[in-house]
Amino acid sequence: MEKIRLGILGVGNMGSGHSRNLLAGLCPDFELVAIADWNAERVEWYKKEITDKVACFSTCEEMIDSGLIDACLIAIPHYDHPKYAMLCMQKGIHVLVEKPAGVYTKQVREMNEEAKKHDVVFAMMFNMRTNHLYRKMHELVHSGKYGRIRRVNWLITNWYRPQAYYDSGDWRGTWSGEGGGVLLNQCPHQLDLWQWICGLPKSVHAHMKFGQWHDVEIEDDVTAYMEYENGATGVFITCTGDGCGSNRFEVQMDGAKLVVENDKLMVWEFEMSEPEFTKINTIPFGKVEVKEFQPETDGENPQHVGVINAWGGAILRGEPLVAEGWEGINGLMLSNAMHLSAWLGKEVTLPIDEDLFYEELMKRVATSRRKTTGKTVFADTSKTYGSAK
Amino acid sequence: MEKIRLGILGVGNMGSGHSRNLLAGLCPDFELVAIADWNAERVEWYKKEITDKVACFSTCEEMIDSGLIDACLIAIPHYDHPKYAMLCMQKGIHVLVEKPAGVYTKQVREMNEEAKKHDVVFAMMFNMRTNHLYRKMHELVHSGKYGRIRRVNWLITNWYRPQAYYDSGDWRGTWSGEGGGVLLNQCPHQLDLWQWICGLPKSVHAHMKFGQWHDVEIEDDVTAYMEYENGATGVFITCTGDGCGSNRFEVQMDGAKLVVENDKLMVWEFEMSEPEFTKINTIPFGKVEVKEFQPETDGENPQHVGVINAWGGAILRGEPLVAEGWEGINGLMLSNAMHLSAWLGKEVTLPIDEDLFYEELMKRVATSRRKTTGKTVFADTSKTYGSAK
Repeated sequence: MEKIRLGILGVGNMGSGHSRNLLAGLCPDFELVAIADWNAERVEWYKKEITDKVACFSTCEEMIDSGLIDACLIAIPHYDHPKYAMLCMQKGIHVLVEKPAGVYTKQVREMNEEAKKHDVVFAMMFNMRTNHLYRKMHELVHSGKYGRIRRVNWLITNWYRPQAYYDSGDWRGTWSGEGGGVLLNQCPHQLDLWQWICGLPKSVHAHMKFGQWHDVEIEDDVTAYMEYENGATGVFITCTGDGCGSNRFEVQMDGAKLVVENDKLMVWEFEMSEPEFTKINTIPFGKVEVKEFQPETDGENPQHVGVINAWGGAILRGEPLVAEGWEGINGLMLSNAMHLSAWLGKEVTLPIDEDLFYEELMKRVATSRRKTTGKTVFADTSKTYGSAK
Repeated sequence: MEKIRLGILGVGNMGSGHSRNLLAGLCPDFELVAIADWNAERVEWYKKEITDKVACFSTCEEMIDSGLIDACLIAIPHYDHPKYAMLCMQKGIHVLVEKPAGVYTKQVREMNEEAKKHDVVFAMMFNMRTNHLYRKMHELVHSGKYGRIRRVNWLITNWYRPQAYYDSGDWRGTWSGEGGGVLLNQCPHQLDLWQWICGLPKSVHAHMKFGQWHDVEIEDDVTAYMEYENGATGVFITCTGDGCGSNRFEVQMDGAKLVVENDKLMVWEFEMSEPEFTKINTIPFGKVEVKEFQPETDGENPQHVGVINAWGGAILRGEPLVAEGWEGINGLMLSNAMHLSAWLGKEVTLPIDEDLFYEELMKRVATSRRKTTGKTVFADTSKTYGSAK
């Protein structure tokens, strides 16, 4: 195989963006040969605005059965990610799944099991992991030199979405269409980074507001408290209603504090770890010496293109992925735990009761008033990714 | 009365600091004439190191009965603030109480009731209110031009205290000695500023760790979630264990975001309020225009001296106080609500059940293993106040 023949499933905002990158030659291991989308109008738009040089199908099955593709990038609404990923796997087609991996861990677990049975490269589109700041943070936290994590705080409230956003697709903002709100749509990257850098907590207690800032069914305001096995605590705060939100990720460790904010990583490194210091210090208001610095990084942030290229490298040359497909369940576990905790009004421990989660979700899906405007408005989102601002 | 004759009750770290300011002539309405402290060794130290020109007593009662003082600044351990404040009031002596007002709202409510019966000026040492940044924040939030508060976050973890601090006095870090930890000793200012600027929430759900980072009985790690009547949420995070903590206070409103961090207040002012914007906007990824600026302030931050001078102005000339004595109950209500919530492991609504709080506190006092080292180490804390760093 010289070039991997790629099909894209779903040419909404994300799928069109990926198409543009591929057609611009940014992913040289791939040749974009086909797309599939069940919205005929959107396919017409695609032929006119993006390219008329690729095969167009109205279903994933037809695209797979055409024999044209070796690999499939899945960029459809969340609920169907596992279904089509498994279909591709079963046909020996490599799969890259847009975030989130799915809507509930139960279905994602099934997808992960299916993947083990097939000789395909299964990857997740966790493009934020390619950001040099988060890569460096991951490296420093996992280096071992700063000891234990003690406290994690992520205030990620800069996801402002006006009502027009939720009105732009009848699936948006509904339990039946998305299976959740800001956690499922906006935050999968942060939840993945959280678990990638800091690991999964043992328990979650979340407070949520549903339709607090918008005419929607789902959560648009979340405050989640977490506890780790080692006693560390965490707080994750997010919303889509703040006119001018913040994005500040702080990790406090035994030997350092790390903060990513305003597209900058800063480190406060202690002369010795706090537990060592407090043992030898005799001064009541004594403080450990701290050195503040901005660590050097490679400055690279290849985002979606980086994930697609790593996927290509894995298929052709056995190179490492940015995120293995099976890792998608971790961030979703955090997200599902937050929902379950908020629905039940109490703390939940991880791993959650996946059947109970599914049951509670389906209760909400059953009464979902999924909007029936019929229209879907697409938007150019190409400038909205990748920064840590 | 030309000069107010002042007595200071308690010449530990705080009382000695106030003495130095008074002797340096920074509070011209006052003449420091007496002190009282039951620690004879400390009084000897005071005579030698601070001044031997004032009358020294070993009890508050003696100082009051001496007829030497018109006003008393109370700077003893927390539990006894209301007791001695009431004693002063009953003798017609003006009172300035160090924070916190007391350890439980029940006793502070009694003090507030007592104050109403006497013609004395009753003030609280909420010196952080004199900081120009918080004064400006208070002014902007209360101006009405930014509408409702939606979200409040205060990460105030830069209270690092080594074990030597808790070992420096046998009352430190114990339920019987202090009635609480970081909330009672370090945070009364922030809790007062929180309620002064943002008001009191309707409910609190707090998670606490007791003796997490130190050999102490009390809480040294707190994460508290709050909800307001109007649906706004808040998170207050504090601890005394982080080697290099943070101090970041953010208030998100309908029409602006305000942040105090690193001794700077920044404002992000929206072109129109978010609720107005979302009504008229038709673009799915539309965002309200935001203007970022650093508001002009008078730059002044007179701290303890400012509070004492306002108290003097109130006594002599009827001028306004920085903080009325009765206001001390509000921040303590927040603090007590956090404790009660953590002890009960559930959300509590405000005002809390004060009898239940007292009962729960006394359970802990009864089994308090109050340290019996006997020694008390004093420290110069004069450089540790007032900044918003």
